Amino acid sequence: MDILELILPKIRSPKDLRGLSGRQIRLLAAEIREELCQVSDKRSVHFASNMGVVELTIALHASFDFSHDRLIWDTGHQCYPHKLLTGRFSEFSSMRTRGGLMGFPNPGESEYDLMMTGHAGCSVGTALGIKVGDELVDSTDKRYSVAVVGDAAFASGSIFEAMGHAGWLRKNITIILNDNKMGICPRTGGISGTLDRLRMARTYLGFKHSLRYIIRNIPFANKFAERFLSGFKDGIKAAFIGGMLFEELGFRYIGPIDGHDVAKLRRYFQLVRKYEEPVLLHVFTQKGCGFEAAEEDPTVYHAPSPTLVRQHHYDENGHSTITSGGITSSRKRIKHLFSASSDDGSLPATKNGLVSSFTQQISEAVLNVADENGRTVVVTAAMTQGTMLEQFRDMFPKRFFDVGICESHAVIFAAGLAKAGMRPIVAIYSTFLQRSYDQIFQELSLQRLPVLLLLDRAGVVGADGPTHHGVFDIAYLRPFPNFVLMTPGDALDVEPMVCFAMTLNCPTAIRYPKADSPFVERELVDIELGRAERVREGIDGDILVCGGHLELALNAAKEVGKNLDGMGRVDLGVINARFIKPLDTEIIFESLNKGKFIVTMEEGMLAGGFGSAVLEAAAEAGFDTRLIKRIGIGDHYVEHAERSEQLESLGFTERHIIEICRELQYKIKPTLK
Amino acid sequence: MDILELILPKIRSPKDLRGLSGRQIRLLAAEIREELCQVSDKRSVHFASNMGVVELTIALHASFDFSHDRLIWDTGHQCYPHKLLTGRFSEFSSMRTRGGLMGFPNPGESEYDLMMTGHAGCSVGTALGIKVGDELVDSTDKRYSVAVVGDAAFASGSIFEAMGHAGWLRKNITIILNDNKMGICPRTGGISGTLDRLRMARTYLGFKHSLRYIIRNIPFANKFAERFLSGFKDGIKAAFIGGMLFEELGFRYIGPIDGHDVAKLRRYFQLVRKYEEPVLLHVFTQKGCGFEAAEEDPTVYHAPSPTLVRQHHYDENGHSTITSGGITSSRKRIKHLFSASSDDGSLPATKNGLVSSFTQQISEAVLNVADENGRTVVVTAAMTQGTMLEQFRDMFPKRFFDVGICESHAVIFAAGLAKAGMRPIVAIYSTFLQRSYDQIFQELSLQRLPVLLLLDRAGVVGADGPTHHGVFDIAYLRPFPNFVLMTPGDALDVEPMVCFAMTLNCPTAIRYPKADSPFVERELVDIELGRAERVREGIDGDILVCGGHLELALNAAKEVGKNLDGMGRVDLGVINARFIKPLDTEIIFESLNKGKFIVTMEEGMLAGGFGSAVLEAAAEAGFDTRLIKRIGIGDHYVEHAERSEQLESLGFTERHIIEICRELQYKIKPTLK
Repeated sequence: MDILELILPKIRSPKDLRGLSGRQIRLLAAEIREELCQVSDKRSVHFASNMGVVELTIALHASFDFSHDRLIWDTGHQCYPHKLLTGRFSEFSSMRTRGGLMGFPNPGESEYDLMMTGHAGCSVGTALGIKVGDELVDSTDKRYSVAVVGDAAFASGSIFEAMGHAGWLRKNITIILNDNKMGICPRTGGISGTLDRLRMARTYLGFKHSLRYIIRNIPFANKFAERFLSGFKDGIKAAFIGGMLFEELGFRYIGPIDGHDVAKLRRYFQLVRKYEEPVLLHVFTQKGCGFEAAEEDPTVYHAPSPTLVRQHHYDENGHSTITSGGITSSRKRIKHLFSASSDDGSLPATKNGLVSSFTQQISEAVLNVADENGRTVVVTAAMTQGTMLEQFRDMFPKRFFDVGICESHAVIFAAGLAKAGMRPIVAIYSTFLQRSYDQIFQELSLQRLPVLLLLDRAGVVGADGPTHHGVFDIAYLRPFPNFVLMTPGDALDVEPMVCFAMTLNCPTAIRYPKADSPFVERELVDIELGRAERVREGIDGDILVCGGHLELALNAAKEVGKNLDGMGRVDLGVINARFIKPLDTEIIFESLNKGKFIVTMEEGMLAGGFGSAVLEAAAEAGFDTRLIKRIGIGDHYVEHAERSEQLESLGFTERHIIEICRELQYKIKPTLK
Repeated sequence: MDILELILPKIRSPKDLRGLSGRQIRLLAAEIREELCQVSDKRSVHFASNMGVVELTIALHASFDFSHDRLIWDTGHQCYPHKLLTGRFSEFSSMRTRGGLMGFPNPGESEYDLMMTGHAGCSVGTALGIKVGDELVDSTDKRYSVAVVGDAAFASGSIFEAMGHAGWLRKNITIILNDNKMGICPRTGGISGTLDRLRMARTYLGFKHSLRYIIRNIPFANKFAERFLSGFKDGIKAAFIGGMLFEELGFRYIGPIDGHDVAKLRRYFQLVRKYEEPVLLHVFTQKGCGFEAAEEDPTVYHAPSPTLVRQHHYDENGHSTITSGGITSSRKRIKHLFSASSDDGSLPATKNGLVSSFTQQISEAVLNVADENGRTVVVTAAMTQGTMLEQFRDMFPKRFFDVGICESHAVIFAAGLAKAGMRPIVAIYSTFLQRSYDQIFQELSLQRLPVLLLLDRAGVVGADGPTHHGVFDIAYLRPFPNFVLMTPGDALDVEPMVCFAMTLNCPTAIRYPKADSPFVERELVDIELGRAERVREGIDGDILVCGGHLELALNAAKEVGKNLDGMGRVDLGVINARFIKPLDTEIIFESLNKGKFIVTMEEGMLAGGFGSAVLEAAAEAGFDTRLIKRIGIGDHYVEHAERSEQLESLGFTERHIIEICRELQYKIKPTLK
């Protein structure tokens, strides 16, 4: 089939959806799914969730005009079909690459993208704020405000706060609860009970809704009668169905309806526009819809490896296996112009059993700790798979708690566990732990409760981009009293560090990047509170490495020691910082006392970060800080790209380290003598 | 009446409540209220909320053994009667003074205080964590886990997250919803609709509960029958009452019941212990109960001035007006041993129309800005009174939003308003804005939305102590890109700074302390982005003041310039920093270039704070930082005391400034030459 015969390339804006027949809509859906497979075949992207919202997205854009109306995706990783329908088809293959499309809504790309939503649970509040703002700006210009919220995101406390406020203000925003019966991980808490009850009640809906609609449109049905009938209906519904959760918050609940039936969705969207109050429309979708393997195991297909997608995309004859509303995609296997990227968004796998990821090392250490200490409990927030804790969950089901996308609660809950005498470990990505900032303050630091925080994906994370980088944690954790903050230099550090953390009687955090954890050959020094580890001696200066770049630093030291380019030899030492707090001031002051320079390296914001702590300590002790330089992230966000590209742009390269060291040794040092 | 005849002094622990008659309980309640009045007569303490929970507290301690069972107060300011009944009667008059009792539960004071709960919404999660932990530690040792949550705290998203988790785990924790129909401010959102519906349904309760209880205790009532009846009852209840909100989250809802009837409360507590699932017991209390003026205006009596309490405490004959369950207190006016403290916890009032608080200055500036710019909207989170925004609310009701204790939502909502083209101002105490950390990141900084954050009570706050100090904000806001962060030096800065902030096209924050804002006489320099203001010339060094201590710095400069003590004259300049970000590096480098020293002053954590930013900038530019010293808060929490005592202990004194300057001038400088 020629590309010119396809419908999708002709959709330059949602306006082009007008007038498409039912069959054309189904063809379009198939083409969108085919595009999703094509891009998933190249690199790891969010897959199953996008396959699930194809019809919902088409119906939304066919029913509303979101160049004027307002649409927010929560979370934003389900926005791919939306991007395909809003003028970004031609760039679609650049998804998640440097300079290409972002994997989340991006106001910089399109007027159809309002908010960059990588963290869950903010959509209802922004939709409400925009609604109220729009009315204040121009009360005559009616704009609809719609938030599409995944069922996993729905457990967030901020959604609850926003719904209460919307119910109170009685603004006609529409929440579309995109219920695919599963978030990134199977749901384990939150409102899942309510949703389960609602799911059992498909048949009831049509009647219930029609009745209400009829009552509303009978002129002589006065307020009293309506209220009575409304109460009666709600009673029936609550008795046999549930759904009162939303109505109690002041929302009209409608649903559940089939999220893969475009015609039905459009009818409901038309209906919803008529309400003068907040509405929750409960829509069922199937994650991975149209791709059999993904429908069966949506967790694996959340952001699958290209190999996995390729494996099931075509049948033995090279025909696409994708289906949409009974229509099978007509695509045939085409030769791939791009090879799979090295940074596919997933974690590095074990290579020859030698190198594995920090995540994997940590998860193994946690298993061992739990084996030895029966008081160990693990809490995570919908990141069981991401933090590789499935094995822990299966081995110690009673000591494992996945609380859903409720990071605030995860930390509070862990504080309670610690109070009762358990030894909780909270495993949450650095970026999402930002949601627990105040709880880390009050529940952990202030009460000095022994909870270990595992900050996975601390540093830059590659293709997910700025919403997902874990670059603020050093700066936000360091000012908290009673806290110990660590980071392993390599794989050898990991298990001793986790074991050491479990002996401390205070809140502790270990941060580690989304990266391989190499083994750096050395005579390993035991972990000791507030002590760094010297890995290489050097006369001229030291690189003080905060985190997993020990190998890079050692390579740079070897290189500049050989002076093969003849630009100047530097005898460079390397120190594995291990502790951010308490800082090993002894080793720092020793170097400075010997007239050595120090270069700090951290994958995090420089403002208030690790290097900043070194400066503070040195200045406090009366040292000249002109011999201290810092490598890290300046005052800007880091765009999506491969992790290696990001690190290079930030100066995590041998060349950059060597340049800085030579400058310190040959330019700055002489001026200080 | 002799003190020996009183009951309260004899209550050494809750065990002493056993065997008290109904009349003795009422007498005890009267005595507790009398004590609350006595301490309120001395200094500002949390008053109305504590008057409201007297009977509830007695009933709790009479029904449970909280040396073994678990009790969490949320928020903790309603813990005074609890402190009186748990062995702290004799120290009670020291409430909120330096070295005395803390105004919140404090594990350091008593085994009966589990968590220090100054920020709302964490109780259900900790109660659940403790419950789960207790079972894991010793499954044979049954402990009850109880959280008392005020209705205002109940709107917090973290409560919702925790309830969902508790419902899922089906642990028999008990939430006591202490519904006094009003938080600190009248409720304006959240679950208030639900609560209003529940309040209309007192009569229904007895029947409903009894029915369920009977069903449960009939041996032949099988699961099916119970489920059917349960469904039916829920249906009736939902139709006419509401309450399904809690049941949908997996809680058994019981209530509402009278929170001033100890006997009834005890009966319900006995009942609640029998459940094997989470229970929400809805209790009505009257804020300020027993003190007529406080009952009538609980907002004013949240933490009233001693004068206000004294005024209504006694009748014209000197008899106490306090009543408890029909019993009038027999106390007579006694001579006050203590005079009212100068730091009474409330904001400084206008003195002779000359000096007012920063809060008041800011609120006036906001009024003026809103007058001029119709796009100005104000959002707060149950701090209307605390941030003095009542006038704004009354003048611009359509542009004012109090979202309740939902700080996360407040920022999200404001982001939406900004997206629609409004100019939102979010007024939240620095300490509570910590709840919005992740939203400040994603919704404001990352999207670069022009929202102005007003951080009231930034710095130390006096008697509320460590849960309420606003000392982390500089460190946590500074690393965010796209942000402008300011602080006024005095009253003259305030309005120009607010006006300036409203012209910026990016997120902005203004932090200001809980203090008087004096007028520092000078030729005022206009506010300009990233420009500090030189207030006094000096040859030897400069004090760089970040915030409201301009006067202190000027006095120190004058003093050390006169050299009356003969310890060494220093010619000291004073700079009003105004901007924390972007930092005025020009003025800093100019001083350093001239060989001057710089002393930074900030009411905040030194780690990652303002002085840290100065060090970073100076080091980056290649300056010797040995001439920079920082005054601020070290790596510890600041205990409750008067604000003036706290500032003194932190070195915000003329003497300390002068000492540092002399050290720099006469000890450090000479070594650098």
